[in-house]
Formats: sequence, structure tokens, C-alpha cells
Amino acid sequence: MKIVATLSELRAARAVLPEPVGFVPTMGFLHAGHISLVKAAKKDCRGVAASIFVNPAQFGPNEDLAKYPRDLPRDLSMLEAEGVDLVWTPTPEVVYPPGYQTWVTVEKLAAGLEGDSRPGHFRGVATVVAKLFNAVQPQKAYFGQKDAQQAAVVRRMAKDLDFPVEIVICPTLREPDGLAMSSRNTYLDPEQRKAATVLFKALSAAQSLHGRCERDAEALRRIMRETIQAEPLAKLQYVSCADYDTLEELTTVSGKALLSMAVYVGKTRLIDNFVIG
Amino acid sequence: MKIVATLSELRAARAVLPEPVGFVPTMGFLHAGHISLVKAAKKDCRGVAASIFVNPAQFGPNEDLAKYPRDLPRDLSMLEAEGVDLVWTPTPEVVYPPGYQTWVTVEKLAAGLEGDSRPGHFRGVATVVAKLFNAVQPQKAYFGQKDAQQAAVVRRMAKDLDFPVEIVICPTLREPDGLAMSSRNTYLDPEQRKAATVLFKALSAAQSLHGRCERDAEALRRIMRETIQAEPLAKLQYVSCADYDTLEELTTVSGKALLSMAVYVGKTRLIDNFVIG
Repeated sequence: MKIVATLSELRAARAVLPEPVGFVPTMGFLHAGHISLVKAAKKDCRGVAASIFVNPAQFGPNEDLAKYPRDLPRDLSMLEAEGVDLVWTPTPEVVYPPGYQTWVTVEKLAAGLEGDSRPGHFRGVATVVAKLFNAVQPQKAYFGQKDAQQAAVVRRMAKDLDFPVEIVICPTLREPDGLAMSSRNTYLDPEQRKAATVLFKALSAAQSLHGRCERDAEALRRIMRETIQAEPLAKLQYVSCADYDTLEELTTVSGKALLSMAVYVGKTRLIDNFVIG
Repeated sequence: MKIVATLSELRAARAVLPEPVGFVPTMGFLHAGHISLVKAAKKDCRGVAASIFVNPAQFGPNEDLAKYPRDLPRDLSMLEAEGVDLVWTPTPEVVYPPGYQTWVTVEKLAAGLEGDSRPGHFRGVATVVAKLFNAVQPQKAYFGQKDAQQAAVVRRMAKDLDFPVEIVICPTLREPDGLAMSSRNTYLDPEQRKAATVLFKALSAAQSLHGRCERDAEALRRIMRETIQAEPLAKLQYVSCADYDTLEELTTVSGKALLSMAVYVGKTRLIDNFVIG
């Protein structure tokens, strides 16, 4: 496994990878969710590249950039064990050198939900993904459904800007009790960790209500809201029942919909989602 | 010469071009300036692609999109005569299909000068160039110095977003009396056409003053302003003496600088520039 830091090293190493190249962009502190993306890339592609970069541009001024968990040696050995060919670990100065001033914005999809709570977040995501695509030039790129709005923004950005990259969205991996895997789960103390299953419970309750033919979106939002509010350690930020493609809030669920939520457990902000219909 | 309209036709035709591929993006109604870009691409590259697309996103609501001059048959025969291999002539619906919502912005370089007079113009330029790069995937792309701020914005955008494309800026081509070639010159009546040489005269006067060791930027702006104001058919919009790279207005000219201006002659807005130092 080749590990490179600069853009020119990356371009040289990329040029000799067998194609198609599958690419897994990450912010490191890898868990089984990331590894499932790598496994999907290995299955589809002759060459597999990954990146590890905690992207400052997608963190707000009051967010957890400095304390975002990092463990590069562990990440690298996990990627090596999966047979990854190339890992790019750029510094912030490589990605955003002095004078940097170009931004990619996806307008409607980046508004609402996470975009409301995290102004500028999706501008940072869309920009870094565009840069990573140009740097790595993969044929396929792999993202997790866990970050549902990010997946929608990246799909839209790649389509709108005509990137010759197929976007593959892989299912959310979960702990045995249903908690979606996330690098941020490491912030939770044992009591909070138990309480954090309330997101899965709330989504499951709404899914089950939908399964019993409830088509009123507000009823689905209500059962999620009530489930979260019944957990004393959880503080709801939003619940949503939105169109799967446009992410616009629904009145009536007819086709494919996204149930999603953001919840604080202590100081840790967790998100999760189910696709229904 | 292959002429294609859809993105999938373009990708198929691009895939069989010999590399390196040189690319000349245009809005059509070609003149000798465009052809000089094609000749430069032919000289450098084994395959040459061009695009003809009057990009609605770079026209303001009060600008001349509808009456922008078009002559596709003539353009195609000019490109064919130069030995271009592939021409993409997409419709606006191909470039901006329903639901389109992704924009590329270059912040500081797009403010001031043309950016002040034409809000949103460089967002439209940066976005369409990013799309064209992803669609055509050239190794080199050719732009004219005539649109100096556009050249700076495109260079910055390509660098910031890590496009694997070398940006080549070619000199402005001029009529025998000095008027910079532009598709918009066609709007001028014979009297206006004569008056339009005032841009070249003003730039030449400032260049000559700089050649006599004048380093005060305001003195250079003043002589340009006064030259334009002496022409009754011309109405000055702005003059600038700015840093070549950052486009920030200078107080003192020490290194490479850009003299530039926008002038109305009748209803026609003309721009021109000289690089000095």
C-alpha cells in the first residue's frame, strides 16, 4: 500500500493504478462503516484508493474540528489489511494553500436539515469532494447512507458538474443494538452510549408506522419526536420526513422518502436516517 | 471533424481522441482571436476539441444573451478548416437540465472590475468551465488574454479545484487599428467602430507613460480616463491599474500589472487590457 501526502506524489501513484479505480474518501478514525465502503470498492474495481483528511472547511466555527478523533497508524493498518492500493493523507495546507478562494455550492439540497444546523457545512463537503475527484480521478466513489444529505449533495454535485465518476451509496452499518456507526460515537460515555440507541428506536417506530400504512408525514415526524423526547439524555435538534431526491419536507408519503434526525446526547451530536417506501 | 450535441456522444468521441487533448471553449461567432487559440492547441496537442455554447449563466438579466451574435455553420467551417477533431455544441438544456443547482465561485478574483459591473458573471464562467473540463477532460485548455479577469478566474479555479488541466493564456488579437477582436464588435456602426479605437489609444498612452518610468498607478489610471473622456462617443465604465495576479488596485506599480478598462460605445460594452512590467 502506497501512502502519499503531496498532490504530485498522489498524481504519480494514481497514474500507475489499474483501472477502474474505486475511491473511498474519509476523515479517518475508521470503523466498520468505512471498511464496508472499502470492501465494496475492492469488489467492483481493480484499483482502490482512499483518502484520510479531516476537512476544516466542513466544520463550523463552533464545531469539533480540533477534537475530532484521529488515529492515523490504526487507520492505515486497517486500510492495508483490506488491500487498499493507495492512501492520500494531505495536510490542510496541501488542500487549502494560501490564496485559496474557490468554493462549490449545491443550493437547494444543502439547505434545510443538516444545512440549517451547520451553515457552510455542505459547501465544505462539495468543495473537498470536487477537489478529491480531480486529484484522484476515480471511476467510482463510495459514500455511506449514514450521511444521507451528504450523499444527496455529492450525487447532485457530481451530476451537475459532469464529473465522470459513478457515485455509489452503501448502507449504514450499525452496532448490534442499532446505533449507526460513527467516529463521533467515541465521544459517548457508557450511559450516553445506551441512550444513543434512541435514534434507531425512533426511526424504527416511524418505519413501523409507515408499514402499517400511515401516509401522513407529520404523524411519522411526531412518533420520532415523541420517542426522542422520552429519552432524558437526548435533546432533539430536528426530525424530518422528506422526499428522497429533493429532501423537501413531505405532507403525504407516496414514494421513496427519507426519515432523518439530529439529536444531541450530552454534547455529542448524532444523526441517523432510514429510507422508506 | 466530429460534431456532437449530447454529453454521452461527447464522452464517446472524446474517448477515442489521441492525447494530449487541447481544448478551446468558445461562445461561437468566431474571429481570428478564437482561431489563434485553436492554432496554439493544434501546435501543442495531438487531439483538439472545441465547444460552442453561449452560456446563459454568465449573462446578467439586463445583458445581451438573446441578441448575442450566433453563426454556427460559419463557426463549424472555420474550425474544420483549422483541423479541429471534435466540436461540442450542447443546448442550454444539456448543460443546465431541470433541477440544476451547483455553482462554482472564485471569491476575491471575481470581485471588482468586470465582477462589479456584471454580478454573477464569473460564477457563470467558473461553473461552465468546470463542467466543460469534466465533460471534455483535456490536458490543456486555451483562453484569450482579452478577457483578463476571466483568465485569472479560470487559472485560479483550475488550480484551487486541482483540475489536471494546464491553462494556456494566449495574447489578444487586434485589428490593424488596434481594436481588440471581439464578437461584440459586430454591434458597432461605422462611426462607433472608429471611436472604439479609443480603448487601445488609452492603454497605449498609459503603457507609454509607464515606459517613461511613471510608477504612480493613479497617474496611469488618469491618463486612461482622460483619453477615454476625450472621445465623445465613448462612455467610461471603469479603468484599473491592478496587480497582475490578485487584481487588487495598485498605488505604486512595481512588478507585473494589468491595465484594464470597460467602455460603452453606444450601447456596446467593450473591454480591453495591457499587461505591463
